[in-house]
Amino acid sequence: MRPLTESALLTDLYQLSMVQAYLDSGMTDTAVFELFVRKLPKGRNFLLAAGLEQVLAHLEALSFTPAEIAWFERAGGFNSRFLDYLAGFRFTGDVHAMPEGTAFFSNEPIIRVTAPIMQAQLAETRVINLMNLETIVASKAARSVLAAPGKFLVDFGLRRAHGAEAGLLAARAAYIAGFDGSSTVLAGERFGIPVYGTMAHSFIQAHQTEREAFTNFALSRPRDVTFLLDTYDTEAAARKLVAIAPGLKARGVTLRSVRLDSGDLGALAFAVRAILDAGGLKEVGIFASGGLDEQELARLLGTGAPIDGFGVGTALVVSADAPALDCAYKLQEYAGQPRRKRSAGKATWPGRKQVFRSYDADGRMLRDVLTVEGDAQSGEPLVTQVMAAGKRIGAPEPLAAVRARVRQEFGRLPAHLKQLEDSATPMQVEVAPALRALAAAVDRVAR
Amino acid sequence: MRPLTESALLTDLYQLSMVQAYLDSGMTDTAVFELFVRKLPKGRNFLLAAGLEQVLAHLEALSFTPAEIAWFERAGGFNSRFLDYLAGFRFTGDVHAMPEGTAFFSNEPIIRVTAPIMQAQLAETRVINLMNLETIVASKAARSVLAAPGKFLVDFGLRRAHGAEAGLLAARAAYIAGFDGSSTVLAGERFGIPVYGTMAHSFIQAHQTEREAFTNFALSRPRDVTFLLDTYDTEAAARKLVAIAPGLKARGVTLRSVRLDSGDLGALAFAVRAILDAGGLKEVGIFASGGLDEQELARLLGTGAPIDGFGVGTALVVSADAPALDCAYKLQEYAGQPRRKRSAGKATWPGRKQVFRSYDADGRMLRDVLTVEGDAQSGEPLVTQVMAAGKRIGAPEPLAAVRARVRQEFGRLPAHLKQLEDSATPMQVEVAPALRALAAAVDRVAR
Repeated sequence: MRPLTESALLTDLYQLSMVQAYLDSGMTDTAVFELFVRKLPKGRNFLLAAGLEQVLAHLEALSFTPAEIAWFERAGGFNSRFLDYLAGFRFTGDVHAMPEGTAFFSNEPIIRVTAPIMQAQLAETRVINLMNLETIVASKAARSVLAAPGKFLVDFGLRRAHGAEAGLLAARAAYIAGFDGSSTVLAGERFGIPVYGTMAHSFIQAHQTEREAFTNFALSRPRDVTFLLDTYDTEAAARKLVAIAPGLKARGVTLRSVRLDSGDLGALAFAVRAILDAGGLKEVGIFASGGLDEQELARLLGTGAPIDGFGVGTALVVSADAPALDCAYKLQEYAGQPRRKRSAGKATWPGRKQVFRSYDADGRMLRDVLTVEGDAQSGEPLVTQVMAAGKRIGAPEPLAAVRARVRQEFGRLPAHLKQLEDSATPMQVEVAPALRALAAAVDRVAR
Repeated sequence: MRPLTESALLTDLYQLSMVQAYLDSGMTDTAVFELFVRKLPKGRNFLLAAGLEQVLAHLEALSFTPAEIAWFERAGGFNSRFLDYLAGFRFTGDVHAMPEGTAFFSNEPIIRVTAPIMQAQLAETRVINLMNLETIVASKAARSVLAAPGKFLVDFGLRRAHGAEAGLLAARAAYIAGFDGSSTVLAGERFGIPVYGTMAHSFIQAHQTEREAFTNFALSRPRDVTFLLDTYDTEAAARKLVAIAPGLKARGVTLRSVRLDSGDLGALAFAVRAILDAGGLKEVGIFASGGLDEQELARLLGTGAPIDGFGVGTALVVSADAPALDCAYKLQEYAGQPRRKRSAGKATWPGRKQVFRSYDADGRMLRDVLTVEGDAQSGEPLVTQVMAAGKRIGAPEPLAAVRARVRQEFGRLPAHLKQLEDSATPMQVEVAPALRALAAAVDRVAR
């Protein structure tokens, strides 16, 4: 049995029913689908595109094993034309996309898939699944990065991420957005993301005394040790650390930081800082964790609390205030004819689209124009081709390059779009006359 | 490279640092950890335990490959004693748990792990990761089941679930709670969950006319067809279906239902019902989807809208109003000595614990008593042994048995705990005198 992340059955049944119907009726022309976010979630003034790398890897590998094909035979209602099609299935289409780390706004295509309609339809579920997850977490992580400039930020969320892949990809998305690393070991192995860790309360509790626990831990992995202080009494633990620090240093231990994980983190940070400074441990930093989100980071730093870094967990990896995007992967063109959905409240802009972004004299984002591909507009085009005939163009982009793009985007986003609250003046996304004209033309055709 | 769901690196770095420190200091005695929820999320009067099957499978299989061990060598700071330990690692401990589908409340242990402390510590991250996900989704799904009694409910959430495993396990969790099935094909293959599907708007849009789309789809898979009506104009589409239905039936098509996915679902359901009934299609059901949650199900059914089934997607699979549990896996005993954490606001009850549940004369849950194992209390004990020395006791429980348990729990939960709003009188969880005495005894030992 294949890993579930690679299974071609990780899709919605209707995708397969539609593929069979397309084959049966000979409708195998090229379709164009685009993925976009209808409306930014409350509390988001921009989103960061993420997940493209996983999408491209998925499309390159997508195929059906004999065991998977056998499932459809058993399920019933599928015919031999369809089963033969699955047996030979490879994705042979083109993909255009915004590069990972690009800031984007509502109605802007972040991925376009151009392929025989059966292929483009089969791609839908997993393309949304991957892009929704990484985009929502990268966009959430960006808020912590903006709320705590210059602070050391680590993803601590694996345990409450929604399963294995969510934990791994949340670490990737947070790193893209500017986090310094993750506690998730697998993120180190798979993506080369820096991995950090401290100790748990259970380690302290298992020992007869905190002092013994600190000592055993430090001597086992003596480099850059972080000590957890809040198991019993935070300030008392800080004083114990001061007492044993000279002995530990004499035995080759280097102290990096202390971690506070409960109580009034701001007040405790001031108190612990004073104890450490008075005890000759000015070089030891203070790291805070425990139910934190970007609002709490901003609040703590606003009080001047001497905190050098934060572990952000649950709220980050589930994007607690906006755990999903109102996103859609919609048919924009079939057999060369532009299409749109006109459902109440869910109408879409037809055709293959491009976004042109303009900047002001200071290099800040000024305006996006959404238009049809080929309609020349001033500004920087954001959507480029990344896959041709089923093969990606160029090598996977290194995470360092994606991180650099995010830093550039942070420099280009106007201040009011970087605030944690909803901006009164959201980014202007204009619909060009050429696109309006196309939509009107599509609507004149009765269905 | 192993599937990420099986990787032993899907854990937090500190678990490994602690394991090395335990080995280095010779602290290899038996530890007891319990997983519990500190406080039920807002809007939850009970939770349904889920995920145990995946936890047991994980613990039985947990081991480190040479490639994984090599990662620790490269990471640095790990010694040969530790690397040798990983090479021979197998989980040999005991597990006690509440059976899947059991209703539970705050501070009640849902899983207990008893093992050499290195093993119990290494289990932590993934045990929480799996139990948090399935429990939160099963508990969310239960609300839809209670809000729409007798209605046909299908999980439609894969595309916005957080990655591959979340999508698959959300389908399982929803099915446990009483959903009829899922759109996720892999849930059918892996778990035998009934899989359902309709058609997408793109299918309609790709055709020149709705009528042609309906016909092509129905003839391709003629059994129990569901037609999507809202791509352009819902009522017009219903009339088109009435017009073509006799011809389709004559060609062997059986019509199951129509799907409404946008607009005022209640008003449209009344209008479409009237059109179908007048058109001789009384047997065709109405299925609604599109951004639904349990509150909306209750509201729609409260208006008497003639809707026979619902597809529930995003809000279900991300548990949108409560996307994570405030849960913890805490050390309760080490080397035969009970332990507790005393951190501000996060103190825990020490020792190996049991929950006894009492029922009133009508069989409704009356009271839970939390106490230490071995303290006899009246009522039904909820925690039983499910794994001994690393091997599960008995075969995996069939999903049908778990579903039956959930139905039993719904019959046992008092009405005020089954309402969608927070109950003014939450379930009573009493702490037995024996447990209070143990906590006091633990606190008398200075750490």
